[in-house]
This record gives sequence, structure tokens and C-alpha cells, in this order.
Amino acid sequence: MGKITKVSPLAPAGFPELPVIEGVQFATVAAGVKYKDRTDVMLAQLAPGTAIAGVFTRSQTRAAPVLDCQAKIGGATEKGAAILVNSGNANAFTGRRGIEAVEAITASVAQVCDIPQARVFTSSTGVIGEPLPFERVTAVIETAKASLNPGNIADAARAIMTTDTFAKGASATVDIGGKTVSIAGIAKGSGMIAPDMATMLVYIFTDAIVDQTALQAMVSDDSDRTFNCITVDSDTSTSDSLIVAATGASGVNATDDDTFRDALHGVMQNLAFQVVRDGEGATKFVEIAVTGAASDADAKLHAMAIANSPLVKTAIAGEDPNWGRVVMAVGKSGAAADRDRLSIRFGDVEVAKDGWRSPAYSEADAAAHMKGEEIQIAVDIGIGSGTSTVWTCDLTHGYIEINADYRS
Amino acid sequence: MGKITKVSPLAPAGFPELPVIEGVQFATVAAGVKYKDRTDVMLAQLAPGTAIAGVFTRSQTRAAPVLDCQAKIGGATEKGAAILVNSGNANAFTGRRGIEAVEAITASVAQVCDIPQARVFTSSTGVIGEPLPFERVTAVIETAKASLNPGNIADAARAIMTTDTFAKGASATVDIGGKTVSIAGIAKGSGMIAPDMATMLVYIFTDAIVDQTALQAMVSDDSDRTFNCITVDSDTSTSDSLIVAATGASGVNATDDDTFRDALHGVMQNLAFQVVRDGEGATKFVEIAVTGAASDADAKLHAMAIANSPLVKTAIAGEDPNWGRVVMAVGKSGAAADRDRLSIRFGDVEVAKDGWRSPAYSEADAAAHMKGEEIQIAVDIGIGSGTSTVWTCDLTHGYIEINADYRS
Repeated sequence: MGKITKVSPLAPAGFPELPVIEGVQFATVAAGVKYKDRTDVMLAQLAPGTAIAGVFTRSQTRAAPVLDCQAKIGGATEKGAAILVNSGNANAFTGRRGIEAVEAITASVAQVCDIPQARVFTSSTGVIGEPLPFERVTAVIETAKASLNPGNIADAARAIMTTDTFAKGASATVDIGGKTVSIAGIAKGSGMIAPDMATMLVYIFTDAIVDQTALQAMVSDDSDRTFNCITVDSDTSTSDSLIVAATGASGVNATDDDTFRDALHGVMQNLAFQVVRDGEGATKFVEIAVTGAASDADAKLHAMAIANSPLVKTAIAGEDPNWGRVVMAVGKSGAAADRDRLSIRFGDVEVAKDGWRSPAYSEADAAAHMKGEEIQIAVDIGIGSGTSTVWTCDLTHGYIEINADYRS
Repeated sequence: MGKITKVSPLAPAGFPELPVIEGVQFATVAAGVKYKDRTDVMLAQLAPGTAIAGVFTRSQTRAAPVLDCQAKIGGATEKGAAILVNSGNANAFTGRRGIEAVEAITASVAQVCDIPQARVFTSSTGVIGEPLPFERVTAVIETAKASLNPGNIADAARAIMTTDTFAKGASATVDIGGKTVSIAGIAKGSGMIAPDMATMLVYIFTDAIVDQTALQAMVSDDSDRTFNCITVDSDTSTSDSLIVAATGASGVNATDDDTFRDALHGVMQNLAFQVVRDGEGATKFVEIAVTGAASDADAKLHAMAIANSPLVKTAIAGEDPNWGRVVMAVGKSGAAADRDRLSIRFGDVEVAKDGWRSPAYSEADAAAHMKGEEIQIAVDIGIGSGTSTVWTCDLTHGYIEINADYRS
């Protein structure tokens, strides 16, 4: 699976302690889908009554498991549910055989776990265009079932990795009316897309009771402010999937609770940031905050144009406070701008104001900010009140190394 | 001006012999705008009656000279005209001082050459955000005027270079009713944008008589099929300019002549290809031809999504026939597609058909095609009759080297 890269310099110190979420059990198995000597199948079984919400890639060339999940979101919750993920093969662009593989796996999980097939959600991540050897997956489901355990979430985070350089987890606990509800999530991905669809997959679990419709609305809205605001290289996987499952096992209803909503947002943002921190070849974590645009939508166009510009990203890699490239990106974004009202800050340093280099500009101060691991670029468009913040990483030789010889 | 790079491996053998265009004279001077020991100002004087058409960057943060040129296109042609270009400083994002610099230079050229200021077109290319020391330019205009010569076009091509690794020229001659008309053009640029706005500038001259309105229509349409169909890194300069001047000195009217139109298209395409061949770090020239899209506009969205995908471009750099990344790019383009109708060829090798790996696929044959300097990727979307062809280059360590430490 390409080059083994060393752990990202932006990785957290270690995998966090995650709370056990009642109503969810995890198992991991080495099925040998493609990798040797590691787990590559993750099974999560969810208690009866679990509400499940999901957000998926908008790609027109979505993989078979994604289409299957999308069709199942919102279904009846009275019986149990399950999530099965394999790494090593994305089951994408595999035509009719892709659909057959999803059918075989979901049927097998349904039978072994005694839940409706309509409640079995699957994801696949890894190489594309190769038929998924689904028999290797179905062959281990009995074994997985036998080892289900509420404490296995860290193992689950590792089993779904492909080119990730570290396992990603985040959690929160919330007090609602004197009772505690917990949220724990895992993610994989080293880009909106990484080599050969090294897709972003995210699974978040909570023991709160949340109405499915409300949960879906919450997750859709939050993902627009988190996972849809990160980019590594502007490319989009055919398999990106985010699933949030609320088991209700705590007995605490969080459907309309703002604290819960904020906590869920925090977990999603944390996981989204970890994906950026594992961006291929990344050496800098970059926040781009746009204000003063004609609308929020325009602000996001500007922010994403900056975040995806190869020239901006290479300048950051070179620790060069090259604000001219930021101006360029604003100019090409397609959203409204007025050259002579633009202001730009790198960290606390005002580099451009009213369409020209700031009178207070100090190249030394700006260069000092660029030497850090966390870079802030703030752009005020100066024509309205639209805002958007997005996160990305720099573009380095590491990205070329990882991607130019991935299959060789 | 950043690293001196060796000549692109995709460069032509040498600068071509270009025909002398009657009615145009060129001069080049070393004004010391920024560079030492080389020419950096090019003056072209055009005979009375010259029709001038232009196409300019769509950036919302356009530089002052671009705005000035746009305002002047279509003006009265009875008197002479001039084009002045400086390299080393782009006079972009320079606020009020940028406008003052354009005013000073155009006034000076008008006075020295005895032509209306409204017929003096300027371009500036180089670093941005620094005030253009326009006095250095105005100081050499008398000298330039004194050395005007019809045979100096090759020198002109060299004077406008910034990070280009070779000078770019192309020409054509056309027989119209037994008489010959000539077209000669020069260009600079090593990307739609290169570091710090190393802008694409193109100047094409012909001795044909062409009505200004017809010339503008021809140039706009042709640039949509040539210069607007190339991309190096998806970034867009604040200064891109294309000016076509028809002096009429041959006495031959080519306004409605299809042969002339085809010849002009050929010169534009040739220069556009040379810009791609000088793409920063380029080692492969890549043609992407999309057919079977819902419309031509959709086909172009697909083609540009493929051409700008960092994952596709790094795969090409790695000589990897990674068709999965092409599928991914089609999926994210925003244009209509049906995964199960997609077909993809690399050169003559069918790699994917009807949404899956082609039964005839030979990895060895596809890999052999990828080893060449010229890569063809053909994608049939399979849902309509829209077509588009675009040209790009690969994404290599050279791009990172050139752009990550440009100002350092």
C-alpha cells in the first residue's frame, strides 16, 4: 500500500482515552483482504433503538457501499444495527460486482448478528477498481461476533487505517440534567482524498437518546462546518462516509440539548483537524479565516480557493509570508472581491491593507509566524459580512513522494 | 527572481525563425527594473490603422495595467499604437500607485512615439505588491524608440521572460487570393500562473487587414479553445494578457477568411502548448480529451477537474497508469456523470470500460504509454455528445522546489 511514511510531525502525542459508549461493541479481525499481519475488518454492533445519521461524499462516482448506506439511513430503529468496515480495498468502480460484494457482506452480518440487513452499514477503503474479495470478509464475521467488546474502540480506529500515519480518536462527555452522556468517535483519512481513494471515514457513537431526524439535521449541519471545511489537496474521495449512532443507552434525551450539540460539534471538529494533521506530507496545520465577504457562501469560496491553491500551499511549506499568492487566490475564487479593500493577516501580523502592502508590515514578523507549526491566515474581503473558516495543510515534497509512486 | 532552473525537458529545440510583420517594429532595453544584466523592457510600435483585440485575466484582483488595457481595446485605429511590457515587477496589488505608474508610462510612450495615449497598451510581469519603479521605464523610452526595428521580435520574446526557461515564439503564413499574409507571436509564462504572478503574456502580430470587431470575436473564441484550455496548477494570474494586432500592411483583407482564422488558431495553440511545456517542474505534456458529456461545458468541467487534480498529476509524474484517480476527478467535477458508463484510455490502451477495469486492460501496455513525454488521457463519459480537450503537465518535485522557496 505504497510507501510506509513516518508518523506526521503534526500528530497528537498518542491515541486518547475514549469513554465506553453503552450500547456499542467493537471487534476487529485480520481478514487478509490485502494487508498482511494487521487487522483490516472492524465490526461495531449497535443496540436495538439506535438512531443512525450519515453524511456521504457528493462524488458522482460514489462507491457501492456508499450508495447502500445512503439508501438505509433513516430506517426503522427498533432492532439492532451494525457497521462493518474493511480496509485494503475500496470496492469502488467495481460495477455490478461491487454491489454483489455489499449484498454478500451485509447479508452475512445480518444473519450472524441477528439484525435486519437494512440495518447493516458498510464502508470499504483502500485500492479501487479491483474486485473486493468479499469471501475473506464474510469468512471472519463469526469470529468477529464472538469477540465483540465495548472497550475495543481503539483497536477499531487502527483496523480502518490505510495510509494514515496515526489512529484518530476524540471524545466528549456532557452533563444533561445531572446525568452524563458520552460521545466517542474514530476517523481515518489523510486528506479529503489520499492516494487511491484513501478515503475519509468517520464513526461517532453516543449513548444519548437522539431522535433520528434531529440527529441527521445536527450531523449534516455540523459536517458543513467541520469535515466539509477541511481540505488537503482539493480531491474528493468516492467513498467518504460519516456515520453517527446514538444508542440511547444512557436513558438521557439529548435531542434538543445545546450542550450535547456543542459537544458533538467539538468531537467532529477534533477528528476533522486530526485528518488535516495527517495530510499527506503535511508539516504545517493551517487555518484560513475569511471575513467581510458578500455572503457566507462567498466567504467559503474564497477560503477554499486559498486553501487549495498549490502556490499558497507551497509558500507555506517554504515558510514564506507570500501574501501575493493569497491575493491571487481571492481573485480567482469566483466570489465577489474588491482588490482595493482587501486586508490580510498572517497570525497577528497585518501584511496587506486596503489593497496594498500594509504600512505597518514587517517581513521579519510575518516570517517568524510562518516558522511555527500552526499558521493562521485571516483575510478580510471588506465588502460585506459573510464569514467562513477552513483548515488545510501545506504542500511539500512529502506529498509528491507519497503520490507519485503509490502503485509502483 | 527565485531559482534559476534549467531549461524544461519539454522545450522545443530552439526559438523558431519568425517572419517579419510589416507595420510592427520592436525594441528592447535593459532598464534595471529588477533584473541585472538583461533586457527587461519591450516596446512594439504599430503602424496607423492597426486593429487591436485583447483577452485578459478574469481575476477579480486584476493588476492596474490589465484594467487600463481593457478600457482601451476597441478604440479608434487611424493613428499608431504601441505595446510596452516590463518584466521584473508586475505592478499588481499596488493600489493608487499602480494606476499612477501606468499613467506615467503610457503618457511617456505616447509623447515619445507621437501616438495617442489611448493607444498605448502596457503589461507588467514579475513580483507583486512592490511599487513599480516606473521612472526606470520612462527613462529608457527614448532609447527604445531610437532602436525600433522590424526584425527584433526574438529579442522581444526574451525581454518579457521571468521564470520562463525558454523564449516562446510561433508563426504562420497564409495565402489569400495569391497574396501572402503573415502571423508571428511571442509568449511568456510557465503556468496559468507561476511563482509570484509569473503571468502569461502573449502578443501576436499580423500584417493582414482584419476588422477590429471581427478580430476581437476571433481572438475571444480562439482563446477559449487554446489559452483557456491549458493549466499548470489551477492558479490564475492577476495579469494574464493576450493582445493581437493586425497592422493591415499586407493590403490583404482577412476579416472573413477561414484559412487566416485557422492559421491564427494554430499560432495561439502553439504558444499555449509552449507555456504548458514550460510549466514549473514539468516532465510530461498531457492532453486530456473528454467526450460523451452532457454538454461541451460539462466536458470542460470534467477535463479541467482531471487536469488540475494533484493526484492525477502526481500519478503522471510517477508514470503510473492510475485510472482510479481519473474516475475520482470526474466524480468531483460537479458535472453530470454515470459511474457505470465511464470509459478511459491512456494513449491507445483502454483501461476502463462501462464503469470498471477494461477486460482487455494490460497494465504493461498502459505503463509503457506513461513512460513517454507526451501523455494522452481520453475519457468518454457515455451520457451525451459534449466534448472538450485541455492540456496540462505533471506535478513533480520541481514544482515544489520552485515554489516553496521563491522569495527566500
